[in-house]
Order: sequence, then C-alpha cells, then structure tokens
Amino acid sequence: MGKNKEGKGTHLNIAVVGGGSWATALVKILSETNDYVGWWMRDEEAVMHIKRYHHNPKYLTGVELQTERIDVTTDLDHIVSEADYIIFAVPSAFLKPALEALTVPLEDKVVFSAIKGIVPDENVIVGEFFFNKYRVPIENIGVIMGPCHAEEVALERLSYLTCASQTEEYASNMAKALACDFIKTSTSDDIYGTEYAAVLKNIYSLAAGICHGLGYGDNFQAVLVSNATREMKRFIKNVHPIKRDITGSAYLGDLLVTAYSQFSRNRLFGTMIGKGYTVRSAMLEMNMVAEGYYATKLIKSVKKDLDIKMPISNAVYKILYEGKNPKKVMAALAEKFS
Amino acid sequence: MGKNKEGKGTHLNIAVVGGGSWATALVKILSETNDYVGWWMRDEEAVMHIKRYHHNPKYLTGVELQTERIDVTTDLDHIVSEADYIIFAVPSAFLKPALEALTVPLEDKVVFSAIKGIVPDENVIVGEFFFNKYRVPIENIGVIMGPCHAEEVALERLSYLTCASQTEEYASNMAKALACDFIKTSTSDDIYGTEYAAVLKNIYSLAAGICHGLGYGDNFQAVLVSNATREMKRFIKNVHPIKRDITGSAYLGDLLVTAYSQFSRNRLFGTMIGKGYTVRSAMLEMNMVAEGYYATKLIKSVKKDLDIKMPISNAVYKILYEGKNPKKVMAALAEKFS
Repeated sequence: MGKNKEGKGTHLNIAVVGGGSWATALVKILSETNDYVGWWMRDEEAVMHIKRYHHNPKYLTGVELQTERIDVTTDLDHIVSEADYIIFAVPSAFLKPALEALTVPLEDKVVFSAIKGIVPDENVIVGEFFFNKYRVPIENIGVIMGPCHAEEVALERLSYLTCASQTEEYASNMAKALACDFIKTSTSDDIYGTEYAAVLKNIYSLAAGICHGLGYGDNFQAVLVSNATREMKRFIKNVHPIKRDITGSAYLGDLLVTAYSQFSRNRLFGTMIGKGYTVRSAMLEMNMVAEGYYATKLIKSVKKDLDIKMPISNAVYKILYEGKNPKKVMAALAEKFS
Repeated sequence: MGKNKEGKGTHLNIAVVGGGSWATALVKILSETNDYVGWWMRDEEAVMHIKRYHHNPKYLTGVELQTERIDVTTDLDHIVSEADYIIFAVPSAFLKPALEALTVPLEDKVVFSAIKGIVPDENVIVGEFFFNKYRVPIENIGVIMGPCHAEEVALERLSYLTCASQTEEYASNMAKALACDFIKTSTSDDIYGTEYAAVLKNIYSLAAGICHGLGYGDNFQAVLVSNATREMKRFIKNVHPIKRDITGSAYLGDLLVTAYSQFSRNRLFGTMIGKGYTVRSAMLEMNMVAEGYYATKLIKSVKKDLDIKMPISNAVYKILYEGKNPKKVMAALAEKFS
C-alpha cells in the first residue's frame, strides 16, 4: 500500500455518478483541487437547484458546492463521454437502474466504484458487475474505500481514503485527485479485498446493531468486532489470497467506523431488528434498505462453495432471511466467540 | 489460544487483592461458582461494611456480594497464606504500597495479574515485577485480560476474559474459575503479549481522547485505532516474538473497548488534554492518574533500545511529558497515518 505524497489535484477529467450523500461528498472533495468535475444525477430538479443555489437540496444540504468547476447534469452519456475516470457512488440497489440510460461504451474508461455494497439480482460485487456486464477490463477497474462517513466529509473533518486498482497509475491518479486539506489518500492493488471488506463490514455493523438492540454492552461489542475482523480475514484470504494487512484502514478502519458510528444506517437497521422490529417493518420505518441486507445474501451464496467458518454472517442470515429469533441466534453465536 | 469448555467453577483457593471496581467485579465473578474467595483490601471500614451490608460501599455499589463464600479482610498475609491462586487487581500505582504489609512468601503461589498497567518507579510490567521482586517463577505467573469494563460486569452483561500463563494447567484452572453465566473465558500462553497489549491500549485510548478533545471525528478515530493496532503488533512482536493473532479479543478487543467506551478513564483524561487542560490540572480534576500516563513513559523507555516505529506512543509522550502542543503534535501524527 502506497501513500500519496506527490501533491494534490490533477488535470484528469473525473466524473461522479450519483446524487446521494456519498456522491455529494466526493464531488465536494474533487472540486477542492480539480478544475473539472462531471456529476450525474437522476433528479432534474436537484440539478437545477444545485446550479442555482450551489448546494444539493436533499443530501449534505449544508455543503457549499464550487459549481464553477462542476458540470452537473442528468445526461449520463454526456458525463461518461467527457470523463476519463468515472466514480460510481449510487447506492448499490440503484446502480442498474442508473445505468439504463447509458448508450455510450464504458470499456475504454477507468471505472472506480465507491459503492460499498453488492449489485442486487446480479449478486456480485461492483467491480465484477462492470467486468461482466460492461466489458470494463479488470485493469481499468478501481475501488475507493476507507472509513469515511459523508456527513464528516461535509464538515471537513480529516478523513482517509484508499484508492485501489491493479494498475498502479490509475490508483495513484485517483489518490492525487481526491487528496485535499481534509482528505488523505493511500493506494493499494487489492481491489477484491477492499471491496469484499466493505461488503462484509455492513453485515458486521448490522450484527453490532442487533446485539445493541438486544441489550449487549460495550464489552461484548468489542469481542464481536474482534471476531468479525478474523472472520473478514478468513473470507477475503480465501476469495483472493494475496498479501494484505487486515488491520489496515480500508479493512479494519472501515469496519470500525461502521460498527461504532452513530451515522451508520446498517447499525441502526440492526438495532431495530434487535429491539423487535420485523425486517419488513424496519425497512419501512427507515424508508430505505440497508446495504448489509443484500450483503448478507451475497456472502451466503459466495460462501457456499468455500470451506470457511463465518458464524457472524451466518447468524445475520438466519435472522434476516430465515425469520429466526434474534435473541436465540445471538446467544448461540456468543458461544462461538473467543 | 484455547477455549474453556470444561464446565464452570473450581475448588481452587483463589484470592483477589484490591478494593476497587475491577477487584470487586472479579470477586463477584468468582463467587458465582467458587466456594471460597479470599479478598484483601486496605480499607478496614469497607471490610466491615461488606460483611454487614454485602456490598462494597465505594465501588460497584449496586453489586450484591455473596459474602457467605467471601473471606474479606485487611490481613494480606492471611489471604495469601490461604490461597493457591492470587489475583492482583489494584491500580498499578498502588501495587507496591499494597504489598508492603506482606511478610509471607509469594514464590510458591500462582500469581495472576489483572492489572492493566505498569509498576511506577520500577517501570516494568506486572509479571516482571513479581519475578524480579518476589521471586515468583515465570511459569507461576499469569495474566487476566480482555475487553471487560467492571461496570458492565456489575450489570452481568456478557463479557469475555483471556487467562494467560505459560503453564497450561494454571491458565485452564483460572479460566474455569472465572467462567460463569455472564463471563466466557479463553486461555493463552502469551503472558508478555497480552500484558503489553493492555499497557499499550491505555496509551492509544488516551490518544483517542486527545483527538476527540481536539475535534477530530469518527472517520479519523477509526484510522487512529487501525494504525494503533499495527503499532501494537510491531511492538509486541519485537518484544516477544511468538505466533499470535493481534485481532484477538485480548489484543484488538481490549483496545476497542478502551478506545471507544464511555467508561474509559484514559479516554476521558485524553479528552481533557485535547480540550486544553494541562496534564496536572486534568489529573487534579479526575482525582486520579490514568494508567496510560505511566504506560506512556514505560513504553518510551522500553522502546529506546528497539528499532520500531511508534508514532502514536511518541506523540502522546511529547504531549504528556514534554509539554508539546497537542494540536500541533496530532496534526503531525495524522500525516504519518495510512
């Protein structure tokens, strides 16, 4: 893993796809130091609002956007055509619908995923989806990960991002483009490991929420996260066995911020389940689906061909998909911890 | 690392030395399943109160103690003579004063330390202190560690402890003695690693507090703890190079509960420093010295002969012992993170 020491900002043409809080945060970061930032979102009214009032009307509304550098539009073909590097930052459930409007090819672009989740129906991680469905070569695929709640980026609180690509130049260029006063960046070649870590951490955050909702305390949460780190290591090592340090910020760091932070939607979703909400009513109440819900199903299906112990993911699967009693499932899980 | 599956409780004669909250929690745990628990504390009035009212008047006051199984006294020689296994659970600063009254030998006893800190003046970890000063053989020394706030034990919230000794039988016996409905136990042979981890985590918790006090957010804290885990691994590996998994509950787990919990005194001490208190005024305000204060000095002195990068411990040392400006020191530290 390298560290970006070569100055900030680039003259790359970079675009962000997505209108939510993480996409807005990425556009804010990029427009700190880059002259051109393309930005696609579906909502025409939001585009008009941003052009006129310089902030997103729905997400991170307090962030003043430097619109003189931002090319914001609902025209996906335009954004993709103009850009060399495209960052996808829609919630994973909206990736396929967002791409429906695309008629220009993606295969000659450098495609980075900032989506911490999997593609529903396809049941694959985002990198694989672009390779399978849009013929983007693996060497053109990248991942932006790290413990980075959008809400804190909005407040310009110091945060760290890891840019991974098997092509060092692409990872390094993206790391430079994202580096600014409040964002520090590193590079990595572990696109599978960082992406799976980001998927798994949503499951563990959900588990932490369930246990919190059931009344388990801080001592137990620390043991849960410690066991989750080991489960993550086993899984990633099995799926993609390269040398990596699981205690790095893109793995353990991302798990920590999600499992411990008050901003985590997965943790909140889990807490509601732990407190007795059904899965369906928790979803309705939150008015959204937590990424960890899909992640749990993906990991279960990937895992079935692998001989790895994954007691935490299994426990969450039983609760979310088999209607098992959270209290009983977590009590059985607790017996397996050390 | 083994797991205790062989049932709960023992017929060992076990005693606890200390009158504070962690000692009280250990006595509560032991008296769940063991017939005899010796308990020494300095305060005669507290002893009388416990015998009469079945709870400690000063610490974990809500805990009802099963005094019919508890031999509580101010007579240290009596407690040591009666016991085969002795757990020391005084704050590290009070260990030497507590032992002044001892006239019977310790060297034929099994001595466990539940002290997460170092012995001031002596500047050594607790196990080494008993070996150096009381001729307790290394094979008779044990350590009880894990993410375990006494306050949560008082509430009978499920918690995990690791009992380490180079003599498997002693580790296993202690693990059995401590296992009860709300405490699960594991064994380990890593007495140095678990003890140093417990010392280091106080420094990292203090660092987390300082950064919190300075206004750093959750994203940064996750990166700090991730970097701290790697620093801990480097240090312990250098001091005692045996095979261990740093993501285990006795290492990472203990770090997490201390760095993230509201109960942590080290974190609170750090927060005050970050908010602008001087070291002296923070100590006065808290009416106690946080273990991390001594730990920082010890690690600095052990480290000076070792070629290990320890940017976090160094930063805390500069702030606590060299009067350096916390804001500047932490900004420089943040540059070193990845």
